[in-house]
Amino acid sequence: MSKVRTLTGITTSGTPHLGNYVGAIRPAIQASKDDNVRSYYFLADYHALIKCWDPERVHQSTREIAATWLAFGLDTDKTIFYRQSDIPEIPELTWILNCVCAKGLMNRSHAYKASVDANVANEADPDFEVTMGLFSYPILMAADILMFNANKVPVGRDQIQHIEMARDIAGRFNHIFKKKLFDMPEAVVADASDSSAILQGLDGRKMSKSYNNTIPLFSTEKQLKKSINKIKTNLLEPGEPKDPDTSAVFQIWQAFATPAQVAEMRTEFENGIAWGEAKKRLFELVNAEIAPARERYNEIMDDPEFLEAELQKGAEKARAQAAPFMEKVRKATGIKRFK
Amino acid sequence: MSKVRTLTGITTSGTPHLGNYVGAIRPAIQASKDDNVRSYYFLADYHALIKCWDPERVHQSTREIAATWLAFGLDTDKTIFYRQSDIPEIPELTWILNCVCAKGLMNRSHAYKASVDANVANEADPDFEVTMGLFSYPILMAADILMFNANKVPVGRDQIQHIEMARDIAGRFNHIFKKKLFDMPEAVVADASDSSAILQGLDGRKMSKSYNNTIPLFSTEKQLKKSINKIKTNLLEPGEPKDPDTSAVFQIWQAFATPAQVAEMRTEFENGIAWGEAKKRLFELVNAEIAPARERYNEIMDDPEFLEAELQKGAEKARAQAAPFMEKVRKATGIKRFK
Repeated sequence: MSKVRTLTGITTSGTPHLGNYVGAIRPAIQASKDDNVRSYYFLADYHALIKCWDPERVHQSTREIAATWLAFGLDTDKTIFYRQSDIPEIPELTWILNCVCAKGLMNRSHAYKASVDANVANEADPDFEVTMGLFSYPILMAADILMFNANKVPVGRDQIQHIEMARDIAGRFNHIFKKKLFDMPEAVVADASDSSAILQGLDGRKMSKSYNNTIPLFSTEKQLKKSINKIKTNLLEPGEPKDPDTSAVFQIWQAFATPAQVAEMRTEFENGIAWGEAKKRLFELVNAEIAPARERYNEIMDDPEFLEAELQKGAEKARAQAAPFMEKVRKATGIKRFK
Repeated sequence: MSKVRTLTGITTSGTPHLGNYVGAIRPAIQASKDDNVRSYYFLADYHALIKCWDPERVHQSTREIAATWLAFGLDTDKTIFYRQSDIPEIPELTWILNCVCAKGLMNRSHAYKASVDANVANEADPDFEVTMGLFSYPILMAADILMFNANKVPVGRDQIQHIEMARDIAGRFNHIFKKKLFDMPEAVVADASDSSAILQGLDGRKMSKSYNNTIPLFSTEKQLKKSINKIKTNLLEPGEPKDPDTSAVFQIWQAFATPAQVAEMRTEFENGIAWGEAKKRLFELVNAEIAPARERYNEIMDDPEFLEAELQKGAEKARAQAAPFMEKVRKATGIKRFK
């Protein structure tokens, strides 16, 4: 396999919002069209269970995320699009990697350390409410990546450490069992200067479910308009010049507009466009890009058979690789049939 | 299911010795004949990987242990006898249980704490050489047990804590997902007054691979005789009375003899039997019990097709239960198909 193999997982605990679309979905679907790349996309439902113990939420989120990716035209013939829990080889590999992974590596995980710091600050037990899922999920993530020997993993800055951990675990396995079974994955971090990669939310902070400042991707047109109207602005009146570079309205505009449209809006801001007018134009721009997918999304949400068939097709392709590869991994450790 | 369900795992990293036979194999095969009990026996190869990174050893041990149990007449029609790694549902369940298991529970594991104490005593990092396999194996063990809702688990005293942990994890899952899917397993500890349950080794300590004081179960007759001759004794001459209760020779004799034979040997000790003579009689007694199985063992070791077929039969029976049960478990967490 000489093609670049790229892998993206989406945790199935939330409803897709504009930030997910701009930061992950749109670039991933764009990248999947590259003939030199073999793309793996998966619904990370085993990751969702770490923090979400609401079965309805997990199920609904999985359905919404799958429908979203398909609605935006993910080509499931060209890519491998699957649900993590449909691939039993992934938890199998997770266990085997557990056996070569130093506990000390997990002790140093940023996500775990953040929980410990918060507990200590609250004078609670350092491991208060920390589950083994939270503590050990970098190993599940390593299994996700190493299962398909993905060599390029697009991640946010906060995830770079996990890719380093996957490399460490892969290297340990290869060394201990004297077989070069795992390739070394590399993190691909979006250029920090690309302002459109991280979208601002209603309050100007990064758009994120945890900040409760998101604009849902597939609400109705009316709800989308309402959401956009809620973006926080300052009190400058129509006619007063406005600073585009400190405005979430302008920042979101940039993520959807052509360079010519960006320049045009910058002039409008300098000329004192009314906030109401700027938001109206932003709604129209965003809606124009999203409307066709919204229709398809609603169709897919109403057709669970189609959705399931697409995921089963992906699971079959993924397992056609994972099953023989796991046999090699198991065999390297001494686990194999007698005849 | 109203039958008692009992489950026993054998870690596949060693070669069966007399202590394994007396302490585990013989009583388990005896118990499996009880029509009111549904018995599960498995080759715990995923547990073996925690401490054994020698592929040849893991493979050979799995083969030797499987052949041993069959040679002693384990009825694979009546019981379920399988290889842990043939049941992909077990690592799946392990991951799900990770997500509800408090890390604090694992921090308190005796096995982990013993490693930490040894490291601290050596002024090393507390987690030096501790793998995530060692740290989290009580969760794999919980999955082994809960997968089949085993309600009686025969264990040594050092394993009681693991059964308590399995109960804790089972209770957390049932509570969080509001489904009583898991029964509470109970530890069954051999009566401490039953001196035959823990066999003494060549040096009088508990017979154990870690003490390097074992008598292999299926060496040749000649090697068995040689091993028994190596049992440590004191310097008392023939004719001098000997204390049976401090003698490993007598303790092993007890594990194989009828009550009448025990009483007889006690008198012989009091009458000053020569150590050589006592060992000769011990060899004859042990060999008489083991010889028929030894022949069958050698046949089975030479017939990997038969051995594999037996394990595949077991895997099929185990998965017939595990697969639909895991579907229920997954569904309780929100992981299910769309149609």
